[in-house]
Amino acid sequence: MAAREFDLIARIRARAATIARQDVVLGIGDDAALLRVPPDQLLVVATDTLNAGVHFPADTAPADIGWKSLAVNLSDLAAMGAEPAWCTLSLSLPEGDPAWVDAFLDGFLALATKHGVALVGGDTTRGPLSVCVTVHGFVERDRVMRRDQAHISDDIWVSGTLGDAAAALVQWRAGATVDPRLRERLDRPTPQVALGRALRMTAHAAIDVSDGLLADLGHVCIASQCGAEVDVDALPASDALKASFEGDARRHVQAAGGDDYALCFTAPGWAREAIDTIALDAGVRLTRIGRIVAGEGVRALLPEGSPWAPAAGGYVHFDTASGG
Amino acid sequence: MAAREFDLIARIRARAATIARQDVVLGIGDDAALLRVPPDQLLVVATDTLNAGVHFPADTAPADIGWKSLAVNLSDLAAMGAEPAWCTLSLSLPEGDPAWVDAFLDGFLALATKHGVALVGGDTTRGPLSVCVTVHGFVERDRVMRRDQAHISDDIWVSGTLGDAAAALVQWRAGATVDPRLRERLDRPTPQVALGRALRMTAHAAIDVSDGLLADLGHVCIASQCGAEVDVDALPASDALKASFEGDARRHVQAAGGDDYALCFTAPGWAREAIDTIALDAGVRLTRIGRIVAGEGVRALLPEGSPWAPAAGGYVHFDTASGG
Repeated sequence: MAAREFDLIARIRARAATIARQDVVLGIGDDAALLRVPPDQLLVVATDTLNAGVHFPADTAPADIGWKSLAVNLSDLAAMGAEPAWCTLSLSLPEGDPAWVDAFLDGFLALATKHGVALVGGDTTRGPLSVCVTVHGFVERDRVMRRDQAHISDDIWVSGTLGDAAAALVQWRAGATVDPRLRERLDRPTPQVALGRALRMTAHAAIDVSDGLLADLGHVCIASQCGAEVDVDALPASDALKASFEGDARRHVQAAGGDDYALCFTAPGWAREAIDTIALDAGVRLTRIGRIVAGEGVRALLPEGSPWAPAAGGYVHFDTASGG
Repeated sequence: MAAREFDLIARIRARAATIARQDVVLGIGDDAALLRVPPDQLLVVATDTLNAGVHFPADTAPADIGWKSLAVNLSDLAAMGAEPAWCTLSLSLPEGDPAWVDAFLDGFLALATKHGVALVGGDTTRGPLSVCVTVHGFVERDRVMRRDQAHISDDIWVSGTLGDAAAALVQWRAGATVDPRLRERLDRPTPQVALGRALRMTAHAAIDVSDGLLADLGHVCIASQCGAEVDVDALPASDALKASFEGDARRHVQAAGGDDYALCFTAPGWAREAIDTIALDAGVRLTRIGRIVAGEGVRALLPEGSPWAPAAGGYVHFDTASGG
């Protein structure tokens, strides 16, 4: 490692020190971090990499890359019902530009501060722009949400609205003007940490919507050995999305678009009232979009004559059958 | 994520299942892994990324990339005296070639099996070849080795031999025939996990030699607020290195080369006999190479008239002063 990379690490270390936690015995600055896990809880670990041009457009602001690289990981913890605690950051940069790193940290640490997540280690290396984050959290053993716990006849719910991020990408790829409200959802997704914590007593199975609703629900079905029916036209849409996308174009970004980082979860029918209360408390819209059924695969319910079929998205972990 | 990437994950998951641990409640296959940390121990976390062309030559065999990506991380745990437990793997690949991934896993899982490390999560993404690994282990709170615990008048020790990996790179860069014994040390470094465990009761400070001995020792000095004197000609060399490198060329790869993944540690003089016993038990050569002194910086002791000075390596975290 060159001298300049040590300077970058010193910079990151100094800024990371603004988020202090009692359970960090040793943070950045040694060969490894030393951390204290509460004795009665499980450690929850998720890791995700964002690569330039693959997971975000090359023109994305450094602060947004910082925010998003942590957000997609916190979203994984949220889907387990876990409380976030610490993260590591591995940053590959074509040039070790301190201004770029500072801007990146602005976004990264803004979100870390919001959730009280301490940055406890990592590395900076030379290479094509790539960000690998590993997050750690805790959850009580008997209150964790998993993909394999969906029950037949469960309601299927989703948080917030779907399709905004994918819609921004569609506009960006077409060279069109990108609606700033949609672009905000692409660049600064909101991990549903508080919602995940609130749901862990009530929901059966949960997953975060990163690859597209139908694909992600397909993972739940495989893990839980069941099927799902989703009313595509019941998927919640933002005003910004409704303003620019309609019909099958909207169905596509909502059902197969991805990058939403909403929570999709299943829960028994008798829990509807409790879930409505959780939604109110968390200030998050929760929408029932279908139900878990016997069998396998995700069945997208579409209006008669809709030419759109889920397979158009290139995802295969769901059936292309449609009803209406 | 495209269908093909799910297939790759399924492949990785199936092969990872060969290493089972009781403390893995949930491994690959959900949004996050669920793990059990022993209540009386600290969690130890390290992360390191290897990028093609930066951390390994582009012609490195996939199995060697797999091995090395885990080895450099286990080496960090070894330097803390920690017992490895789990890892995550984030793999960025230009093409999702299953044969390449299988070969990569051959090396990765061979080393993971050797140390009983379970692969519990990660992701595969499209992008320039890059491997980000995060490792987790445990250590007793009062038996951890840190960089900031060196004491004045401590002996400085190093494990194994130094310079082989850097020598292989010198030959490779020159387009010369690379001695296979040196190349083996570059491609398949041995993390000193058992040695680190054995030393944790005896050593004061420790670090793994990844950036070059003098640079890494410089980190210890900064953290421990002390200086160090190193007898460069006392650095242990392999027969392979002696056969191809002499004089200042050898001094350079040994003192400033890096990629050794040896352990450098400090210990009180009265512990010499105990350390000799640890070396015998671990089957690892341990060599005294200098001592911790008051002041700051690392002083490289060189023979009279030696033109080589440490700064030639491009590293600045040590003095360029020389004695003889």
